[in-house]
Amino acid sequence: MYVGVDYYPEHWERKRWDIDAALMKKAGFNVVRLAEFAWINMEPREQQFEFGWLDEALEILGKNGISAILGTPTAVMPAWVAKKYPETLLLQKDGTRIAWGVRKNNCFSSETYRLLSKKITRAMAEHFSGNPNVIGWQTDNEFGSPSCLCDSCRLEFHAWLEKRYGDIGSLNKAWGNHFWGHLFSDWSEIPIPVDQGVHNPGACLDWKRFNSWLNVRFQKEQLDILRVLCPDHFVTHNFMGLFKDLDYYDLAEDLDFVSWDNYPCWGKPEVRFDASFAADVMRGLKKKNFWIMEQTAGPGGWGAFGRNPHPGEIRNISYQQLAHGADGQIWFRWRTCTAGREQYWHGLLGHDGRPLRRYDEAALTAREYHRLEKEIKDTTVVADVAVIYDYESIWALDIQAGYGGNTFQNAVKRYYNALFRSGTNVDMIRPSDDFSRYKIVIAADLNILEDDVADRLNEFVRKGGILLADCRTGVKDISGLCHARTLPGKLSESLGIEIEEYESIPDDMHFDISGTGGISGSFTSVSYADWVKPLGAKPLAGYRQWHMEKFSAVTRNRYGKGSGWYVGTVVKEEGFYDQLIKNLLDEAGLKQSIIPPAGVEVSIRRGKKKIAFIINHTEEVKTVAVPSGKLELLSGKKTRKKLELGRYGVAVLKL
Amino acid sequence: MYVGVDYYPEHWERKRWDIDAALMKKAGFNVVRLAEFAWINMEPREQQFEFGWLDEALEILGKNGISAILGTPTAVMPAWVAKKYPETLLLQKDGTRIAWGVRKNNCFSSETYRLLSKKITRAMAEHFSGNPNVIGWQTDNEFGSPSCLCDSCRLEFHAWLEKRYGDIGSLNKAWGNHFWGHLFSDWSEIPIPVDQGVHNPGACLDWKRFNSWLNVRFQKEQLDILRVLCPDHFVTHNFMGLFKDLDYYDLAEDLDFVSWDNYPCWGKPEVRFDASFAADVMRGLKKKNFWIMEQTAGPGGWGAFGRNPHPGEIRNISYQQLAHGADGQIWFRWRTCTAGREQYWHGLLGHDGRPLRRYDEAALTAREYHRLEKEIKDTTVVADVAVIYDYESIWALDIQAGYGGNTFQNAVKRYYNALFRSGTNVDMIRPSDDFSRYKIVIAADLNILEDDVADRLNEFVRKGGILLADCRTGVKDISGLCHARTLPGKLSESLGIEIEEYESIPDDMHFDISGTGGISGSFTSVSYADWVKPLGAKPLAGYRQWHMEKFSAVTRNRYGKGSGWYVGTVVKEEGFYDQLIKNLLDEAGLKQSIIPPAGVEVSIRRGKKKIAFIINHTEEVKTVAVPSGKLELLSGKKTRKKLELGRYGVAVLKL
Amino acid sequence: MYVGVDYYPEHWERKRWDIDAALMKKAGFNVVRLAEFAWINMEPREQQFEFGWLDEALEILGKNGISAILGTPTAVMPAWVAKKYPETLLLQKDGTRIAWGVRKNNCFSSETYRLLSKKITRAMAEHFSGNPNVIGWQTDNEFGSPSCLCDSCRLEFHAWLEKRYGDIGSLNKAWGNHFWGHLFSDWSEIPIPVDQGVHNPGACLDWKRFNSWLNVRFQKEQLDILRVLCPDHFVTHNFMGLFKDLDYYDLAEDLDFVSWDNYPCWGKPEVRFDASFAADVMRGLKKKNFWIMEQTAGPGGWGAFGRNPHPGEIRNISYQQLAHGADGQIWFRWRTCTAGREQYWHGLLGHDGRPLRRYDEAALTAREYHRLEKEIKDTTVVADVAVIYDYESIWALDIQAGYGGNTFQNAVKRYYNALFRSGTNVDMIRPSDDFSRYKIVIAADLNILEDDVADRLNEFVRKGGILLADCRTGVKDISGLCHARTLPGKLSESLGIEIEEYESIPDDMHFDISGTGGISGSFTSVSYADWVKPLGAKPLAGYRQWHMEKFSAVTRNRYGKGSGWYVGTVVKEEGFYDQLIKNLLDEAGLKQSIIPPAGVEVSIRRGKKKIAFIINHTEEVKTVAVPSGKLELLSGKKTRKKLELGRYGVAVLKL
Repeated sequence: MYVGVDYYPEHWERKRWDIDAALMKKAGFNVVRLAEFAWINMEPREQQFEFGWLDEALEILGKNGISAILGTPTAVMPAWVAKKYPETLLLQKDGTRIAWGVRKNNCFSSETYRLLSKKITRAMAEHFSGNPNVIGWQTDNEFGSPSCLCDSCRLEFHAWLEKRYGDIGSLNKAWGNHFWGHLFSDWSEIPIPVDQGVHNPGACLDWKRFNSWLNVRFQKEQLDILRVLCPDHFVTHNFMGLFKDLDYYDLAEDLDFVSWDNYPCWGKPEVRFDASFAADVMRGLKKKNFWIMEQTAGPGGWGAFGRNPHPGEIRNISYQQLAHGADGQIWFRWRTCTAGREQYWHGLLGHDGRPLRRYDEAALTAREYHRLEKEIKDTTVVADVAVIYDYESIWALDIQAGYGGNTFQNAVKRYYNALFRSGTNVDMIRPSDDFSRYKIVIAADLNILEDDVADRLNEFVRKGGILLADCRTGVKDISGLCHARTLPGKLSESLGIEIEEYESIPDDMHFDISGTGGISGSFTSVSYADWVKPLGAKPLAGYRQWHMEKFSAVTRNRYGKGSGWYVGTVVKEEGFYDQLIKNLLDEAGLKQSIIPPAGVEVSIRRGKKKIAFIINHTEEVKTVAVPSGKLELLSGKKTRKKLELGRYGVAVLKL
Repeated sequence: MYVGVDYYPEHWERKRWDIDAALMKKAGFNVVRLAEFAWINMEPREQQFEFGWLDEALEILGKNGISAILGTPTAVMPAWVAKKYPETLLLQKDGTRIAWGVRKNNCFSSETYRLLSKKITRAMAEHFSGNPNVIGWQTDNEFGSPSCLCDSCRLEFHAWLEKRYGDIGSLNKAWGNHFWGHLFSDWSEIPIPVDQGVHNPGACLDWKRFNSWLNVRFQKEQLDILRVLCPDHFVTHNFMGLFKDLDYYDLAEDLDFVSWDNYPCWGKPEVRFDASFAADVMRGLKKKNFWIMEQTAGPGGWGAFGRNPHPGEIRNISYQQLAHGADGQIWFRWRTCTAGREQYWHGLLGHDGRPLRRYDEAALTAREYHRLEKEIKDTTVVADVAVIYDYESIWALDIQAGYGGNTFQNAVKRYYNALFRSGTNVDMIRPSDDFSRYKIVIAADLNILEDDVADRLNEFVRKGGILLADCRTGVKDISGLCHARTLPGKLSESLGIEIEEYESIPDDMHFDISGTGGISGSFTSVSYADWVKPLGAKPLAGYRQWHMEKFSAVTRNRYGKGSGWYVGTVVKEEGFYDQLIKNLLDEAGLKQSIIPPAGVEVSIRRGKKKIAFIINHTEEVKTVAVPSGKLELLSGKKTRKKLELGRYGVAVLKL
Repeated sequence: MYVGVDYYPEHWERKRWDIDAALMKKAGFNVVRLAEFAWINMEPREQQFEFGWLDEALEILGKNGISAILGTPTAVMPAWVAKKYPETLLLQKDGTRIAWGVRKNNCFSSETYRLLSKKITRAMAEHFSGNPNVIGWQTDNEFGSPSCLCDSCRLEFHAWLEKRYGDIGSLNKAWGNHFWGHLFSDWSEIPIPVDQGVHNPGACLDWKRFNSWLNVRFQKEQLDILRVLCPDHFVTHNFMGLFKDLDYYDLAEDLDFVSWDNYPCWGKPEVRFDASFAADVMRGLKKKNFWIMEQTAGPGGWGAFGRNPHPGEIRNISYQQLAHGADGQIWFRWRTCTAGREQYWHGLLGHDGRPLRRYDEAALTAREYHRLEKEIKDTTVVADVAVIYDYESIWALDIQAGYGGNTFQNAVKRYYNALFRSGTNVDMIRPSDDFSRYKIVIAADLNILEDDVADRLNEFVRKGGILLADCRTGVKDISGLCHARTLPGKLSESLGIEIEEYESIPDDMHFDISGTGGISGSFTSVSYADWVKPLGAKPLAGYRQWHMEKFSAVTRNRYGKGSGWYVGTVVKEEGFYDQLIKNLLDEAGLKQSIIPPAGVEVSIRRGKKKIAFIINHTEEVKTVAVPSGKLELLSGKKTRKKLELGRYGVAVLKL
């Protein structure tokens, strides 16, 4: 198993390299990522390449048993690029070019920048393809710059639209340009929809798609070179978990596997729901295990830094990812840089370069991973529950939230976190994926719902599946136009309801809802309320507010061999979702072998074996009921009925 | 009486038009507003006009007994205008032209845009002047764009200033350019005062006046065409109630009557003081009844939508306007559009086009209006109390609030809302209006006070009127220069006080005041305190704070046959203003025939008859004491002593 | 002693000048500041100078015994400059030139503007050098505009950098441009670091230095003229107390003495710690007494004004500055202007020009000052405690705070305010100053610590001094690069500790600390925690949080003949700092002759005599224990054991 650090030999004197490599080796590290910001070091003047320093670093590392992943360095253009080719700098909303000097400064439609990118990629690939210490590549770094608004981008947007729509009439229809008299007669009339809060939502949506595509194309141009010149190397990219501006499914498509950068340690210690959610999203991109390319090593921040991972936390953060499918882990960074905007983004070593507590904890973790390697080989997470994770709906809701505070991710989290608390693993899937592998499919806030997806969801239920949908699902078509159907549109079939009206609930209001069978107790409805009219569905909870007394808030409908559940509001209390998820799991006959207490996570990797990771996210000792007689792989001991986990403690059970 | 909807046939397929017209007819609707955003449909290419589609829509509507108001479509320029004449797009503060694609994108000084506006207006007027189904016009839509900062606007500003001041020396004096060494020697040196928070207040004030004038001139150019070509049609504009950036008196001057767009349903249900306030402002613009051109039909919002009007609320909102003088009401919009930035601005019908609850409630209201028509014909609100509503003071205070949070409207509301609670109707008047018609005149925060107005207010009191002024009244002259007189300046005469010093009260402080005769009880003085020294006036309330013990907070002065009241601070408790207003009304001998309980509004329209509207703004049942034996027009029953109003209920009494 | 007002004869008619001068004389005023915004009056057209009006004003004032300080009027360029030389207007981030019409609108690198500045300065100097009523000059007004981002500034920045670093390699090293691949090969590649939150911290730091230098150079160019032409006049500038953007030590260097503008009266009445702090900073700039060039005369504000100084407060504010070394005091302004953006920045007289309460209070104060003059002549504050006040650290922390909310001034205030409460006078010193004069030196948050300063601090302790350092001291070198040493770096020697790790404490967290000897009681640690490992130092307080139990929060180390104290966290409770400061003072053997009760300030000026100012900052009567038998100079009475001070009261004791 690959475990290591992000390393920047160019930050330190040559004589330190040997010390660093020896310390890495001692820690059990066997991989580094290198060079992703080192364009200027590799091409100090245009077309003059210097790789000697990197050859030397690779050699020293190699001698210590450490392999390397190289980054194509296009996330920071050299200063000479900005000076010689100012058109490569992205154009901002105020009409000025961005000031060079941070990172991610480039325009992605610039022919010049794309050419320079291909040249440095080709030069690196040619030089390093035969180096035995190089095992793979990372494209660029954390794709996802702000959009460039230059004429080149606008013209390329026009071309992209013309390719998508064929004729201007189709675009007018797709964007609904009959509204506000916005009909175009020529592509050249189309502006960049600079303000996503006021421009046409359809235009905004396509602008997001176009920008995502610009990034994917940029990466593809590098990949095309690497695949030819380095056929034995893998290629990955360091994704940013729940980042929303790019369609990560598209960006992942051409890669061998996904990697991502995980920084979950900022505020008060808390259960790391989001890092788990992000890990499942990352695994879902290619439906396979992933790497952590940047793992939390210390306090981070550009101006002010955050909390220092407390004793046990570096290991805890790392194990959570292992439990969700991380097959490689690389800590960012090896040593805290004394210079630049990230001089407070702390590594395993501090500015002083001494191997201290954080180094020790990472080394302990690395050594444990090597011991576990045999057991977890060829395992991954296998889930019976799927949550639809869709960038089209993410974007549609960012453009028009519908109700205040609504985002796709917030909606998903209401259900995801309840599943986490129940100890259930989840797959994140696309709307186009096959639902039949799953017992339960959750479509939360799936704002954009194409007819064929609705048909397939109905079919899934008809054949015995359990579908849970919640409010604002199915409002729009693929163009971002509202369906001219009574909500929930085609899903009325499997959900057995109709929604004639709905309303936002202002922040200073709430409605009371209470169970009417199936759900027990009273809860608080906030933010939004569908006035749900059951057409065959059974009401599970109803509103207590005078004007909605005749409507339902939550329903369940038998349809074919399955059932369709609907939650027409946002409920304040977590307990509501816990109860609901429990009902769904019971109906699906899904039982967890280990039920975690509050603050503890359980995630299971399966292959030939079944390995359960039990992770304490709190600073208290926790006791977990587990099956007896199972081998706990870290201690080598067999379990009794109860397992005790210290602060941030981890256990790995062979079930 | 005209009741109807805002309708967009261009949003829907031709075959739907017949269904829509039939449904409108069934609801009792007899008018629609059309085409105000349809420039591109009427002039798809420059100088090529296409009105056939609108002729057809008008014909279908006409067959169903529905007349039409046409909008001049200049609030959205066609895309071809922006492309061909980019100088028509407004220039923003950052030096870029606004990106076409929302609405209100144009520069109002652009000769080109003004010419295009006249051409489309003329073409429409020529085509539709003889159409029997057309009854009137709306100019543009909701005038009040952000200011354009282009050179054309700057040069026109210079010309406007030259016309206003004649010579540069007069401008220097009016703006007080001796301060900070800002004297000009030539008009061309004058910049646009882009930052209203730091530029010279006099320059800022004139910039506001100039921008208001640009809009008025633009409208006038359309009116000049319509008056000639369509002499039988009325012309109106849809104003925005309490919108502050334009001098609405000027904008209304050339119109037949004022219309406005009323959206009072957003947050938690509450008494609609502001919609009442706005209605009175609208009626005051031309001192006559008005129309509602856009009335709340459902939840509204561009990104997130708001609350759905609860059962009874659509009717309640509409009746409130009827009670204040609305002679026509048009719901915005007929059907919720499935496209564009307003796809969540809901109409009477939803996206699905089905006539449901909201349609039913509007239809019920329409039918009631037709029944009431005979009774309310030739009635309007007739008030004994006037509140001075002045755009000069609104602007002066927006430029320099004086004390934190101070706005002209906030100050007026302190008194307006107390009058509302007392069941008293109010007229909104200009400083130049005749005060002698009224028993009470309120000058709240009338920051800009010209000498002749002060003289006329003194005369009004001398002859028996009651004047109430409050703090920061009379601080400035028409140029925005502070009077070099001890406050309250010329009004000292009728108010009998002098104010040598004053202070803002920071948010974390307050002073206590208590009654010293005339006012009873203790109250909290916040935000601002005049150190009022009575010179003949009787102290009604004084400060309890050590350094102001010798000063008054509230005073009353006998002067001639009348009295001058002064409130030198902002009082936190509503009860203070209720008590004060009661005293004023008692002194004026004004008695209300119906005293509304909290949450209930009473407004009376008078003509030969006297019709009282009693409106419950709450979601509780309310009981109102009313004169016995009066006819309640909706039920057709005679009143007893008590009238019961359901949630959002309305009663209409013939007194 | 010079006491007077800021006066603008150009704001008022000629006939008022005599009245004003007579009123000033009556009040005991003997100095005015004139003309600092009157460029347009003195040079209405380029190279045409008109000084007659000012000659006349000076003559009238002179006849009334009033001398004048003249301002070079370059803080507001005339409108003709902006029109004729638009390149003199500063370029903003959005690429537009600032709109002329406020003040401080110029680019400081503009050759044109510098030339115009020199011309008007020379013309004034030539004209007024012989005027007997002129005693001195103020350069410009409140230096410290926003930075200009024009090409001229960028090129001059390059030249400045080249001069500082010599070769581009040295700059690359100093800025740490190996990070993110930011190495330059040519000066011309260097951008302006427009965003101080994301650009390279070293570049940001040098940009701040460069902008400070631009201002200093601009002032120097005026000084060079004034020194030659007006050798008998003093030259000063009106500084802004705790303003942070310029290195005030540099700006003060060429002046005769420092003046500053003091506006401490805004919100709720409170003890004026900051005005005291600022006064000590001002006195520290040249290590000598200073003037107040603008002293609070009434409510101030551009849009909304603030609180009116309550009775006694104008005098109180003024005495506080006298107590800290003010040798001249000038109230801003004489009369409230009726025009312009500062028409609500109230003077001693209101808009009405009547001499009322505020005038009376200032006059009383002026007369007292004249009586005190003999006693305070040649006295100044002499302190045993020094606080290091360093613009480099201020800037470094503004660029990268380290922990949330951290600023250099906030850190200093924790200690400064405790010293204030103890009645101890403080000197503000530079890191390069001689520490040996002091018994205690406080280095709070001294983020940038050069090796030689650390060495000298260690030496100071070794020889018997008491050093108190707190967290984030010594993190960086002069370039803003982090020292590659374990914290506190070289200071480990005198402090006897080592800090291997540290962390920010999020806003919703805190740690408990409690005394372990030396400090008693429990306190709350917020914002930041060093994990302090004593290496010889004695723990005074430790953390109670599980993961830090083994670390110290506060330590004291015997080193040589002195001691080194360290506070490794931010403590919420003031009492902690009071206790700590008491310990330090006790250890240093420093005893205050008068211990002020809460809300009262004591500051002592020494010369041949020792004059104690006792100032009540509250609106309550305060009793202060004082030595018996001392002369109270204002009342002329001898003290008994207790002295009673009324609201805002002041006593001046000859000790």
